[in-house]
Amino acid sequence: MTRKIVVVGGGAAGMGAAGGAKAVDPQCAVTVYTGFDDVAYSPCGIPYVHGKEIDSFERLFLASKQAYVDAGIDVRYNADVTRVDVNRKVVEVAGQGEVPWDTLVLATGFNYADPGVPGGDLGGLYYVKNIREAMEWDKVLDTVRSAVVVEASPLGVEMVTALAHRGIETHLVDPSPWPMSEIADPDIMAPVEESWSELGVTTHFNTTLKAFRGDGQVRAVQTSDGEINADLAVICTHKEPNNALGVAAGLNIGSTGGFIVDERMATSAPGVFAAGDCTEIPNGLTGVPLQGLTGSHAYAQGKTAGINAAGGSRAYSAVYVPWGTAAGKWIIGGASLGETTATALGIPYVVGSAEGISRARYYPGVKPVKVKLLAEPGSLRLLGAQMVGGEGIKERADFLAVAIKFGLTLHDLAHMENVYSPAIGALNEPIVVAAQSGIDGLRKG
Amino acid sequence: MTRKIVVVGGGAAGMGAAGGAKAVDPQCAVTVYTGFDDVAYSPCGIPYVHGKEIDSFERLFLASKQAYVDAGIDVRYNADVTRVDVNRKVVEVAGQGEVPWDTLVLATGFNYADPGVPGGDLGGLYYVKNIREAMEWDKVLDTVRSAVVVEASPLGVEMVTALAHRGIETHLVDPSPWPMSEIADPDIMAPVEESWSELGVTTHFNTTLKAFRGDGQVRAVQTSDGEINADLAVICTHKEPNNALGVAAGLNIGSTGGFIVDERMATSAPGVFAAGDCTEIPNGLTGVPLQGLTGSHAYAQGKTAGINAAGGSRAYSAVYVPWGTAAGKWIIGGASLGETTATALGIPYVVGSAEGISRARYYPGVKPVKVKLLAEPGSLRLLGAQMVGGEGIKERADFLAVAIKFGLTLHDLAHMENVYSPAIGALNEPIVVAAQSGIDGLRKG
Repeated sequence: MTRKIVVVGGGAAGMGAAGGAKAVDPQCAVTVYTGFDDVAYSPCGIPYVHGKEIDSFERLFLASKQAYVDAGIDVRYNADVTRVDVNRKVVEVAGQGEVPWDTLVLATGFNYADPGVPGGDLGGLYYVKNIREAMEWDKVLDTVRSAVVVEASPLGVEMVTALAHRGIETHLVDPSPWPMSEIADPDIMAPVEESWSELGVTTHFNTTLKAFRGDGQVRAVQTSDGEINADLAVICTHKEPNNALGVAAGLNIGSTGGFIVDERMATSAPGVFAAGDCTEIPNGLTGVPLQGLTGSHAYAQGKTAGINAAGGSRAYSAVYVPWGTAAGKWIIGGASLGETTATALGIPYVVGSAEGISRARYYPGVKPVKVKLLAEPGSLRLLGAQMVGGEGIKERADFLAVAIKFGLTLHDLAHMENVYSPAIGALNEPIVVAAQSGIDGLRKG
Repeated sequence: MTRKIVVVGGGAAGMGAAGGAKAVDPQCAVTVYTGFDDVAYSPCGIPYVHGKEIDSFERLFLASKQAYVDAGIDVRYNADVTRVDVNRKVVEVAGQGEVPWDTLVLATGFNYADPGVPGGDLGGLYYVKNIREAMEWDKVLDTVRSAVVVEASPLGVEMVTALAHRGIETHLVDPSPWPMSEIADPDIMAPVEESWSELGVTTHFNTTLKAFRGDGQVRAVQTSDGEINADLAVICTHKEPNNALGVAAGLNIGSTGGFIVDERMATSAPGVFAAGDCTEIPNGLTGVPLQGLTGSHAYAQGKTAGINAAGGSRAYSAVYVPWGTAAGKWIIGGASLGETTATALGIPYVVGSAEGISRARYYPGVKPVKVKLLAEPGSLRLLGAQMVGGEGIKERADFLAVAIKFGLTLHDLAHMENVYSPAIGALNEPIVVAAQSGIDGLRKG
């Protein structure tokens, strides 16, 4: 009999699941339900269209609707799943009644945390998510003189940069002392803040949002530090797992609110898998569950869920979370722990850091590359990395996440070989110098 | 008593040794002898000045002569060491007599292999090495209409690109079927050859050099495939270890002609160390001794030799040789074995490859990144990598060399996490896709 697989959600996790399932069992019937008009576009690209780095939203579409038809994946657009019954193995689709499944993949994504202040129903509050809405908001941006970005989350950092690039008077309001404080250390973010300042951005740190003010339309943002005039507020609050369907169905959720899954991405209900921002995954070092990872995590989790939902076998491991993004005129990135997170978790560490360069110092296009490494005292096993620079940050972050996973030490990194060729790499690789400085620091200390 | 350390050679290995020694024992007397006018410039940058990517030779100088004086390193310029006596522990310096040492570091570098054809004494034959000579040759290049590069070594590849960028009619003569055939596979070099063709370069592969013709000055290069008119020939033959001093002193040399050293970079003679292109180092996978590695290898080896020569303790390990360079309009790179070298050594392998991209496909500046991975059949342990693309090649090569060293498998790489952020990385990391394709290929095969 044909295996019926239902996927709820058409983002990276959902479409990864659909593709993974079809790859394992080409005969299976895969139906994807999404509440939106589209699947297979890159929401991560939206800030860059707003910032005019990318010239059109059309470029963000990665595959045509026909491509999914051709792949035998039945995508139902504007189709909201309103209920999941894990005992009778059905979902209820708004206006369409019950749909049976043999296995189910929940890829319901996230919702932005409600700012929880008065004025949340005013016009001019922009939640960056859906591409059709983003197209409308992009027209609005042409008329905006002053905007407030609420919270310096990764999206907030990207949106501040985008709005500033667009020439809009941009304010950032965040309750922490520096941007992306849950991920990045202050020394890493300092050059970003400096470059924002050059772009005319006004930052308001240690500042709490109090209310949105206006007359139907937002006109000002009230904070613990006074009022900011604004035609637009971009809400970049924490991404909370969109777990309502699963919670109502009785699935177990963890401390982050994300569905608890095993290494097959199976939830607590038989035949029900989950992937992406609605799940939580432990950090491989600390065991601390993490939620709201990147699109590549969502896609890989979705693929794993889909493969297992279709009768295949794939494991998804604990994560070491390489991360990175453009921010101001810099690229920031890292993997696993920074000093801030290590301190918050009570994990002791030693530090090695270096301010290196990306090419020979005389070669055109050479950029700074600052690398900071955290290691376990004694063993010097790598615990995390934090970087800021001009190029090569993403590749180093990927590498260092693997180095953490496989237990490499500062000694291993201090002795690694590196490519030296003027146009592409400096004599001294910054990772090597950072590792050596960590070792030397211990000798002196 | 003050330890007397003599270093022969002022390149990356020699200056690395001097610095390493001073770091361990600041009181030691370090004297560096070089036959040239300068130390501490980047010879690797010379092709890029010729190619006008870098605007002046002055930029290639990395430290002033005063900087070495300040560091307590006594550099003797235009001072040729003519003899080493390992029993009496002296070197003989031309015109200065004998100089005693407690420990000695030989960092005598390389000589280009003699092309061994008639006409080798003509004018217009350029051996790229010394920066003062390069400055003179750069003036000559202004008058050159047609040039032949002899052999597609890494330097040859850089010089072909440089001369073509400079608008000189450029020919490349090489006995192999494709460029850099001892390091790179033909599929990796094909895009480079294509971009040379766009630049107007004429390549002559499977072609043997027969003679240089001219009347005091070279006018033509005779090959197995006919004669090429040329005002200049750039000789980019194999780098042979400059071992004469050490051989005369009775030091053991290996199959490459390089000095055999232990992990302290100690030669067969007590108190005598060697580093850089005059030594050979085993490949960590195959045990095959390698010679003529990169400037960063020379520097690290020199530092190790200097540290041990000054009474410190540092080990230098077998190498996995990440490599890379700009070539035509591409960047090429890799680590350890390619298909050509694996086949030549009789080492069985499976392949996984992918043609990926460096950023989101819609993001400005996105470039192709082709990754080919070689792995041991059965274990799928990584044996080597070969890449060609537009950016991020050097960082991936560094990573993959570490992955080989630490025994990572295609499975490990297929499951690695990667940064996805439109401006800096694609959803699918090419290394991951290549690893997965290698695994999938086995299932199908």
